[in-house]
Amino acid sequence: MMNADWYCEAWEERTAFAVRVTSKLYDAVTEFQSIEVFDSEALGRILVLNDCFMVTQKDHFVYHEMLVHTPMAVVPDPRSLLIIGGGDGGAVTEAIKYPHLESITLCEIDPQVVSTCKEFFPDVSAGLSDPRVRVVYEDGAAFVRDSPNKFDIILVDSTDPVGPATALFSKNFFANVRDCLTESGTAVFQTESPFFMEHTFNMVVQDLTDVFGSGRVHPYVIPVPTYPGGLWSLTFCSKTLHPLNVTHRETPAYLEGRLRYYDPDVHRAAFTLPVFVRKLLRSPATAGL
Amino acid sequence: MMNADWYCEAWEERTAFAVRVTSKLYDAVTEFQSIEVFDSEALGRILVLNDCFMVTQKDHFVYHEMLVHTPMAVVPDPRSLLIIGGGDGGAVTEAIKYPHLESITLCEIDPQVVSTCKEFFPDVSAGLSDPRVRVVYEDGAAFVRDSPNKFDIILVDSTDPVGPATALFSKNFFANVRDCLTESGTAVFQTESPFFMEHTFNMVVQDLTDVFGSGRVHPYVIPVPTYPGGLWSLTFCSKTLHPLNVTHRETPAYLEGRLRYYDPDVHRAAFTLPVFVRKLLRSPATAGL
Repeated sequence: MMNADWYCEAWEERTAFAVRVTSKLYDAVTEFQSIEVFDSEALGRILVLNDCFMVTQKDHFVYHEMLVHTPMAVVPDPRSLLIIGGGDGGAVTEAIKYPHLESITLCEIDPQVVSTCKEFFPDVSAGLSDPRVRVVYEDGAAFVRDSPNKFDIILVDSTDPVGPATALFSKNFFANVRDCLTESGTAVFQTESPFFMEHTFNMVVQDLTDVFGSGRVHPYVIPVPTYPGGLWSLTFCSKTLHPLNVTHRETPAYLEGRLRYYDPDVHRAAFTLPVFVRKLLRSPATAGL
Repeated sequence: MMNADWYCEAWEERTAFAVRVTSKLYDAVTEFQSIEVFDSEALGRILVLNDCFMVTQKDHFVYHEMLVHTPMAVVPDPRSLLIIGGGDGGAVTEAIKYPHLESITLCEIDPQVVSTCKEFFPDVSAGLSDPRVRVVYEDGAAFVRDSPNKFDIILVDSTDPVGPATALFSKNFFANVRDCLTESGTAVFQTESPFFMEHTFNMVVQDLTDVFGSGRVHPYVIPVPTYPGGLWSLTFCSKTLHPLNVTHRETPAYLEGRLRYYDPDVHRAAFTLPVFVRKLLRSPATAGL
């Protein structure tokens, strides 16, 4: 569809986003997915999984900061963190900024995502070398089903609900995540675009509500220029905590100057959903992704 | 770059956004610019000016509502509104929702934009038939330079700073807009993407600050999936009013159920700038668009 010096992601043959690339650095097909790495002037290095933009140097900080720092500001004194997916290491790299986190478990199904990001995205994946980090190469759905341990925070940093990530959008998985949380534990799920993927978004939020309970599920929105729809959503789920009841009203000293998107005001603003998103959530979800 | 059934906007040969189109409904080159209208499944009807996505049925409400309702909620009892550019009629259509607005002047340089939108975007341009609306086909820069009238609100609904809109990004124009405002008057300017066009954004905000004064210029952000960078900015400028000091704390009854993006909470959240945008605004702007 595009000339050779552009990389283009078409979204369901409906819209497409492309970037002019300067070189292709990596190309592999693993047991789980295709992995490509490009370099570009506009977005820096780009990780593409199964033909979808996953990480770019230009904009990944928005997603990774909002995924990690939002629950970290709400859960009182979190010690253990589990990340499902997130093999790029971006969420881990945000998490290690908290000195009181004792253990960070990354459960990624595809070892080659981790090795690729270590090689081509050293800044994004830097946190993986922290001694508190343990990487498990396993299906995230099986991991939470079988885990004897509970976690204070679980982040579901999944790809779209196709290929290896399909299981990470099932109600069964959501219930297993809930059961792996400590009493004040909180999970954040990647829940797609409320703008272009409104049906998926609505259905996933409704399924999460069935599992976590009414009033326990709080979507929030972030801008990600390289994801279809531009406006993306994450969803905060907790058995006991409300996302606006933050324990950090100010940015803690150890984060000062180290964040590019998140601060306590941005946290609050992200939960202020546009009218059309609130309306969408009040309408009955259509079954099926 | 794309097959015939896609329309693609390349942004400075750096990134591109494309949509699969079902038909091309209109194609003209005027004295000022090229005008194209497409139909598509993903975004509905699309207006393209000078090869840039300008209006789509899918997402135009975000931009038009945030352009109009934000200053309308702050200025006490506004009676007169001037829109510069905005020939699609989208801003006018939001403005006529206010029963107490007495006069709405649309100053658009290109009559063919207005006639095209009346034909192909009847919903977007519906407000143009309101008896309070007066359309003037004139260069917006000359209009504010020569206007003997003052306005309570001026909206600069311009295209990018190339072609016919270049003059709408000059300090001279900004000063003429300021001088056309009543004492509690407020102007809102379209100020590009703080994500992909950070230098333009920073320079324009600095120029506005030189004209309106320090503490008088307040950028706010909105998601527009079809504009490069996804995250777009508008900037609120007033000689006397602060954008968070709203007179409408609740949505007025006559707007109830008629808005899809804006409400008083969304208003507040939009002025909560991401950390990187605030940092950008503190750094010295580089001269030249």
